[in-house]
Amino acid sequence: MKVILIGATGIIGKIILSQLKKYEDIDIVTVSRKGNTDLIADISSAEQIREMYAKVGKFDAVINAAGECWIGPFAEMTEENMYVGIKSKAMGQINLVMIGKDYINDGGSFTVTSGFLSDDPIKGTINYSVANGAIDNFVFAASIELKRGIRVNAVSPGWVVENYDGKMNSPAVGQYPVSHDKVAHAYYKSAFGYLTGQVFRVWEPSTQYIRK
Amino acid sequence: MKVILIGATGIIGKIILSQLKKYEDIDIVTVSRKGNTDLIADISSAEQIREMYAKVGKFDAVINAAGECWIGPFAEMTEENMYVGIKSKAMGQINLVMIGKDYINDGGSFTVTSGFLSDDPIKGTINYSVANGAIDNFVFAASIELKRGIRVNAVSPGWVVENYDGKMNSPAVGQYPVSHDKVAHAYYKSAFGYLTGQVFRVWEPSTQYIRK
Repeated sequence: MKVILIGATGIIGKIILSQLKKYEDIDIVTVSRKGNTDLIADISSAEQIREMYAKVGKFDAVINAAGECWIGPFAEMTEENMYVGIKSKAMGQINLVMIGKDYINDGGSFTVTSGFLSDDPIKGTINYSVANGAIDNFVFAASIELKRGIRVNAVSPGWVVENYDGKMNSPAVGQYPVSHDKVAHAYYKSAFGYLTGQVFRVWEPSTQYIRK
Repeated sequence: MKVILIGATGIIGKIILSQLKKYEDIDIVTVSRKGNTDLIADISSAEQIREMYAKVGKFDAVINAAGECWIGPFAEMTEENMYVGIKSKAMGQINLVMIGKDYINDGGSFTVTSGFLSDDPIKGTINYSVANGAIDNFVFAASIELKRGIRVNAVSPGWVVENYDGKMNSPAVGQYPVSHDKVAHAYYKSAFGYLTGQVFRVWEPSTQYIRK
């Protein structure tokens, strides 16, 4: 089973990669913008996405943990700033599915990444809230139009910290970090399970607000 | 109290306008792209938004019911198609708030429009699902950064039909249309009430799916 893991060198990507490596039936193609990976691609470019798929050939799953957004106060934000996240985390991930659906094997799956900031915002990350909101709802709409048993889900990780030191005064103000293992399980469930059009929220319910 | 009503000639805009006219304390400035309105502006252009605000001067509320998206099957969709809704319904409405926040009176409000397609998609309208999802979550993130008591909400209308003929075989497949009066009440509540960062879903609960 061939899986393309994009954003393999980021915090989330490393968590997924270290877990997927344990499964002999999974053949992983790692991708990043500039890391030491099998392939190099920037998802904000549709052309680079097409080149990536052409190099990989047939595959069964895409797991994307790449996508950037602008960070800064709303008072200083411009349209150009907003387009950083629109082009990368929103349109980049949509293009991974929109272009990839013509290459993926029957019954394959796409797993994209949103994040808690759409439902439980913090200051300075409006661009993430917008891009994540677009992605949370894109997967649902796309799921009813995909053919050949192809699935698409989003994983929405909570507050993920690389090396948690127990301090509460992070930008996420008191949020309790989510377990790396739980994050990995959600990506595995999305990629190899049965559901489609879903948002798998890997949240710490005691301190993360689940918006109605 | 001065209210800018954008998209005043559309189905939703006409519903809002006919109701707001009943209140003597509300001075309405109507705006559309090409209609018989007080001002002409296309919200997909940040420049035209700036010109609109400059012409209006001081105001207390913006209600936007404008914003277009591309309609068509996912199988035929391109990145360019997706950007129709991103530039108009998503970025256009974000720009109304991002630019307008520097002009609006203290305690003023912005009301933007999403719609049920983010939470209860139908085929052929992925662009709406993406743009509406961006807007549903933008208002929440923006609400925690706006100053001077300025509020921002979205109204998410359900299936709105101009002249309902009782037929179920619409593109929304069996959805029972929502009452025009209820739609107008939600915009009024958003514009003149107390809450911020909310999505007012004006849905018919018997046939519209409320996604978790």
